[in-house]
Amino acid sequence: MKKLFLLAASAMFCISGHAQQALGGGAQFKSPEINPDKTVTFRYRAPKAMSVQVTGDFLPTQKVKMPNGFEVDMPGRGELVEKDGVWEYTTPTPVAPEMYTYSFVVDGVTTTDPANVYVNRDVSTVTNLLLIGGNEKIDLYKVQAVPHGSVHKVWYHSDAENKDRRLTVYTPAGYEAGKKKYPVFYLLHGIGGDEEAWYTQGRATQILDNLIAQGKAEPMIVVMTNGNLAMEAAPGEGSEGFTVPTMGLPKTMEGSFEAAFPEIVNYIDKNFRTLADKKHRAIAGLSMGGFHSCNISREYPTMFNYVGLFSAALGVTDPKVSPVYQNADEKLDVQFNAKNRPALYYIAIGNTDFLYKSNTEYRQKLDSLGYPYVYLETDGGHIWRNWRTYLADFAPKLFK
Amino acid sequence: MKKLFLLAASAMFCISGHAQQALGGGAQFKSPEINPDKTVTFRYRAPKAMSVQVTGDFLPTQKVKMPNGFEVDMPGRGELVEKDGVWEYTTPTPVAPEMYTYSFVVDGVTTTDPANVYVNRDVSTVTNLLLIGGNEKIDLYKVQAVPHGSVHKVWYHSDAENKDRRLTVYTPAGYEAGKKKYPVFYLLHGIGGDEEAWYTQGRATQILDNLIAQGKAEPMIVVMTNGNLAMEAAPGEGSEGFTVPTMGLPKTMEGSFEAAFPEIVNYIDKNFRTLADKKHRAIAGLSMGGFHSCNISREYPTMFNYVGLFSAALGVTDPKVSPVYQNADEKLDVQFNAKNRPALYYIAIGNTDFLYKSNTEYRQKLDSLGYPYVYLETDGGHIWRNWRTYLADFAPKLFK
Repeated sequence: MKKLFLLAASAMFCISGHAQQALGGGAQFKSPEINPDKTVTFRYRAPKAMSVQVTGDFLPTQKVKMPNGFEVDMPGRGELVEKDGVWEYTTPTPVAPEMYTYSFVVDGVTTTDPANVYVNRDVSTVTNLLLIGGNEKIDLYKVQAVPHGSVHKVWYHSDAENKDRRLTVYTPAGYEAGKKKYPVFYLLHGIGGDEEAWYTQGRATQILDNLIAQGKAEPMIVVMTNGNLAMEAAPGEGSEGFTVPTMGLPKTMEGSFEAAFPEIVNYIDKNFRTLADKKHRAIAGLSMGGFHSCNISREYPTMFNYVGLFSAALGVTDPKVSPVYQNADEKLDVQFNAKNRPALYYIAIGNTDFLYKSNTEYRQKLDSLGYPYVYLETDGGHIWRNWRTYLADFAPKLFK
Repeated sequence: MKKLFLLAASAMFCISGHAQQALGGGAQFKSPEINPDKTVTFRYRAPKAMSVQVTGDFLPTQKVKMPNGFEVDMPGRGELVEKDGVWEYTTPTPVAPEMYTYSFVVDGVTTTDPANVYVNRDVSTVTNLLLIGGNEKIDLYKVQAVPHGSVHKVWYHSDAENKDRRLTVYTPAGYEAGKKKYPVFYLLHGIGGDEEAWYTQGRATQILDNLIAQGKAEPMIVVMTNGNLAMEAAPGEGSEGFTVPTMGLPKTMEGSFEAAFPEIVNYIDKNFRTLADKKHRAIAGLSMGGFHSCNISREYPTMFNYVGLFSAALGVTDPKVSPVYQNADEKLDVQFNAKNRPALYYIAIGNTDFLYKSNTEYRQKLDSLGYPYVYLETDGGHIWRNWRTYLADFAPKLFK
């Protein structure tokens, strides 16, 4: 009888017209396929196409001159070769363990891989995901058979904006069953991102689940905020509707978000079982989120004992824009005085990041003032690969 | 300074190579565009393509003969016309308010719309979303500026499978701040689906938020389960990794899921503030989930007071397969005796559904036995449009 139902179900899916692939009407091949020798094969069916390429951050970059004259590093492209209507490309060498994104370029048009349902939105571009495990760090990004924390999509009321705004909150395994109170780590996204960014590309829940299961990180609550104060939520998740995601939104980098941040802390302390003091609070963010973390921790020096700046956008505060950006040096002195000095002030950046210079200058300033920090320099630029690395390095240092 | 940072950020995104679109490197047009007269324009850039079509459930269906000889209704196709490398199609008439999915077909290859970041996975196919509001029912599917419930991704331990399994749980607005206990509605997906299906395509959180805000539905907890008992979670969310989603998984329609269902109820009653009795429990599901709801409510006649069968797969139980499927008639008598009879037994189906006949036979059986039910017949077939309609009709009838 089950077979009969499946047959009927096949007919039904044909009617819906959108799941033929599952039923043999679509891809008869695997893409991407991780081969035993760790090379990867990509396949795309396009009998009438003239060229199909694959592009993604698993390929070496190449210099490309932009229309504005800038010369930038673009991910390389692999040329697929056609046989019987299916195009194929296998990487010449094994692909190192990492989480990558990739796209196909069909006759010059960038598109997704129809054989891979795992997609990721970064600002306004949807790409496919490819995760190659096999080393200790990358295995942190995988869902493992360990106790899992819960992920909550919740709404707090912002008095500053007079609207409800969305947060992603991770609570560690055992939170629901117990009565224990937990420390809280506020984790902030970059420009163009939102409360989904660390949850999706950032693999924050997997990284925390695995680090906690291994005993390397303390069980903690992680709060992933939306740093675009004028928005209720990630694109499509607020009453703004299915808007086109964009960068440089209003109330994103002009002090409002930083000024209003205690609203979020108050909401979390009221609605979750938190250890509600500075000793048990951390804040970190990537790029714009590092900028926010730097500013918030300086503006509220009694709030956070752990501060992480991941590829942070530093040195872009204009005192004319917001009171939060005024008297920054004096506030930094207060943040680092004997009473307030954070247990950990952490700076991480890649050596080809376009923000490397401003981070170096900021470190020199801290050095000259005798303010201690922990520094991690990696290779690579302003990319998610680095931010996941920094999270996996930073989280174990918290609340010890 | 902000502009400088944005400029630098532009460079950075070029480096990542995957967000050019946000920065002018990609689509210079909108797709889809809902025009003032409610026609919709679709656009796709493909200078070298020979043909571009759009297909989706907003178009009238057409009869297509399948390779196996079946003649089925397939969504129609609109032919795009090329100008300066950009293909365009405008619907000849206004498109009725609804949530639709669509794809492009470029030189015969089905692909997504690069100008639309809103995508949906149904089994193993990714399509784009198009939501046209403007009537009362469809406006339920939109995120409105009303108090929002929270959505929790949690894991319960299945003793039956000895593994942790994932659930999506909706708690109504005010749940966190209060101490009140709530009734619970278990909402089950169809074949090929998982605990994400009602949360994404089903718009369950939006429908509940809006119905509750309008005073039409009681505040309730909604539990969206994963009916594939051998799986931990939706594809990509379990330790199985980034598998290719498929239909007809093991332990999906052979009684195990139904038999083990009380584990989920126990977990929910233990970890959420529930009214933990039959009077305050509902169960409903679509297609296979209707099959599960029918079987579970019959197997455990003292558990659910409200039962909803949405386009349910009925009459496909083989007593040889599972004890749950044995003595079904006797169990149905017990379910409908004076002591156990549910407050609401609800059947809904579309008049072109391939399961229409088996549902009619099941209703005839209930009629002949004098067992009462509420019946809703709509037009259309075995499609999400109907299941959202049924949810919006069913939820207000619960716990009154």
